[in-house]
Amino acid sequence: MPNQLSAAELDEAWRLLSPEDRLEGFELLPRGEAEEFLLALSPHEQAMLILSLPPAERRLWMRSLEPDDAADLVQGAPPEERDGLLALLDETTRREVKALSAYAEDEAGGLMSPRYARVRPDMTVDEALGYLRRQSRQRVETIYYAYVLDSEQHLQGVVSFRELFAAPGDAVVRDIMHTDLVIVPEGMDQEEVSRLFSRHDLLAIPVVDAEGRMKGIVTFDDVADVVEEEATEDIQKLGGSEALDEPYFQVRMREMLKKRAGWLSALFLGEMLTASAMSVYQKEIERAVLLAVFVPLIISSGGNSGSQASTLIVRALALGEVRLRDWWRVIRRELAAGLGLGLILGTIGVVRILAWQSIFHLYGAHYLLIAATVGFSLVGVVLWGTLAGSMLPFILRRLGFDPASASAPFVATVVDVTGLVIYFTVASILLRGTLL
Amino acid sequence: MPNQLSAAELDEAWRLLSPEDRLEGFELLPRGEAEEFLLALSPHEQAMLILSLPPAERRLWMRSLEPDDAADLVQGAPPEERDGLLALLDETTRREVKALSAYAEDEAGGLMSPRYARVRPDMTVDEALGYLRRQSRQRVETIYYAYVLDSEQHLQGVVSFRELFAAPGDAVVRDIMHTDLVIVPEGMDQEEVSRLFSRHDLLAIPVVDAEGRMKGIVTFDDVADVVEEEATEDIQKLGGSEALDEPYFQVRMREMLKKRAGWLSALFLGEMLTASAMSVYQKEIERAVLLAVFVPLIISSGGNSGSQASTLIVRALALGEVRLRDWWRVIRRELAAGLGLGLILGTIGVVRILAWQSIFHLYGAHYLLIAATVGFSLVGVVLWGTLAGSMLPFILRRLGFDPASASAPFVATVVDVTGLVIYFTVASILLRGTLL
Repeated sequence: MPNQLSAAELDEAWRLLSPEDRLEGFELLPRGEAEEFLLALSPHEQAMLILSLPPAERRLWMRSLEPDDAADLVQGAPPEERDGLLALLDETTRREVKALSAYAEDEAGGLMSPRYARVRPDMTVDEALGYLRRQSRQRVETIYYAYVLDSEQHLQGVVSFRELFAAPGDAVVRDIMHTDLVIVPEGMDQEEVSRLFSRHDLLAIPVVDAEGRMKGIVTFDDVADVVEEEATEDIQKLGGSEALDEPYFQVRMREMLKKRAGWLSALFLGEMLTASAMSVYQKEIERAVLLAVFVPLIISSGGNSGSQASTLIVRALALGEVRLRDWWRVIRRELAAGLGLGLILGTIGVVRILAWQSIFHLYGAHYLLIAATVGFSLVGVVLWGTLAGSMLPFILRRLGFDPASASAPFVATVVDVTGLVIYFTVASILLRGTLL
Repeated sequence: MPNQLSAAELDEAWRLLSPEDRLEGFELLPRGEAEEFLLALSPHEQAMLILSLPPAERRLWMRSLEPDDAADLVQGAPPEERDGLLALLDETTRREVKALSAYAEDEAGGLMSPRYARVRPDMTVDEALGYLRRQSRQRVETIYYAYVLDSEQHLQGVVSFRELFAAPGDAVVRDIMHTDLVIVPEGMDQEEVSRLFSRHDLLAIPVVDAEGRMKGIVTFDDVADVVEEEATEDIQKLGGSEALDEPYFQVRMREMLKKRAGWLSALFLGEMLTASAMSVYQKEIERAVLLAVFVPLIISSGGNSGSQASTLIVRALALGEVRLRDWWRVIRRELAAGLGLGLILGTIGVVRILAWQSIFHLYGAHYLLIAATVGFSLVGVVLWGTLAGSMLPFILRRLGFDPASASAPFVATVVDVTGLVIYFTVASILLRGTLL
């Protein structure tokens, strides 16, 4: 290994390295890069890395962390190591870290830092700036906003640093502060917190308790990865597995199989109904084997149009573009879309049968009836697939499940059985007296 | 309508309102909320709203916008209105807006603001603070970082406001500035820019030209929505349609049909191969209609396992967890996963057939051979589906396409035909001399 290593190089190789090599690589990083690198790891990896350091360095590193980062790291460590890590902190930080550890990792309280810049409402701008200048020499997470607190820690308002800086020195904080604050309660879910950040373009949001006392701030970098994580979970569910929770190569094979086999087996059990449905129509197939030829085409068209519709609706629900009570508007739209798509596919299907008939003479004397059966079935199956696919996410959410579970395979499975019923029903009507 | 309206209420109703009602609602907003509300609209909607205002107000609003926001709005207006909107700006801003309009909307140059805080390397901290305080009274996008420029606008370094604030007043800027800068070229794609933000937890990144001259800054709020937009595009493609580019209810039906029918028709044409494959096996089906009964079950199992694998890989590629050159490691993993999943589904399938046989006696004298055929086919189809699904994203990216086009329906279509071939091949081997 070279004497000087960059964080990017180490990151590149990280997954392939043994714990010893990781430690060695980490110690070769320049100090500034090392800190950034450490914080980019998962809390568990952070803990394992810190625990592998010699005791003196371990203390140094623990003491350099912000309380919210330290809390995450301690929670990521094996239970038997946590007290040892806490003991490395100074008294104040240890108390802060313990308080933060009471919150779940994915709620506002678990994301927040208790170190924010504060001023009093009756200070002048010059006093406030001087006071902030002293605070900024200690450890304060951000000075982009100064929070105005009364003597009981109740949050009165906020003033951005830039406003304070641009205001006349003898103005009073109370007169320039904003009182229309965006605040979050301690228990708010990180996904909601992240939406507040992106809606209001804020750098930090104060966290308050039920009595309006300020407990800390969540900064934009604490939620920067939330949007990406949530999208990844949704995508993995939409693909028909459970969320992996870890990068692809880091999931162990056992875990990977468990997360994928569950849904796949459930879908397989559901798909068995197609075998039952096919058994019911076995007589029809015996009389007209030609019908079996189009079964995969018909049911896959239903499945494809259904997964298209469900995916669009799942995402629209996740982004808040569509809400639960919009279901009726969605039905009206998807009715039109499904009918249009069904007519397009039905037409292509009919044209294909007529063309093949005129070239290969595959479909016998009743080829027109076969074409009509396939054409009408496609309209019905695509329309039904589109409606079922668009409604499934609403039904799942209404029942308290994640709409993203309305995965493409799930919708396809639901639609396959009904697709068979539609197809054989159309066939029995159109082909009675001729092929059936 | 009430006399005072909140931005949240207007946002709620926005989609349902006529242009006149939108204007009326907008004018009822308190000034502070109105600006935030305006900027949250798409550039096109911003332009339409501003254009519907009376001329005096229109000028007022245009002049209150930051140059990067104004450039977006002007580009969102109908071409014939753009000059009129530009004419409302003051001379300096007009020049800045015109320069910004030369960049594509989704590259760094198109996102950046030319208004940033600058200091000279030889200033003292007190001089720099005084200079910044004057700049902050004019319109500067951010003062969280001050950029250190020489007289030819070459970027020398950066100093965070907090560091400047905490430094002794007589220190020289050159001595406290950082020179290990994260910078982006003007043409960098917004997705890459957004990754830099989330990797380095920065508030702003400077944009420089090929000669190292500073052109502007991109701030974190400019890319806040990029991650979400990119995930939405990927999800919609994975569901088997083109990206909608607009919220669900705002896409017009014509456009919606176009984006959805394209892929659906292409997949339908591909799926027609199943009809051809089934025609090839028509003789076998005539002899053993029972075989047709399991066709939907077999091919859907291939499709489901394939879309599961492709979705996991598409997301892992998008996040950079897996790279193009990792394809061999992925094959090895998916070979194990596919075999495991195939054995699980195959076992369930065999158990199901044996159970149904003992209860309903559906499958005749050769039920053991039928069970074996279904079981072995499932192992083969699921293994093949998993491998094909995991490799398709690599192949697409290698060919220069978006891996997210390896949608669940696309994979299912690819796997359906081969699934039929696997099934009927297994059947012809195991059932020769008995059923076939």
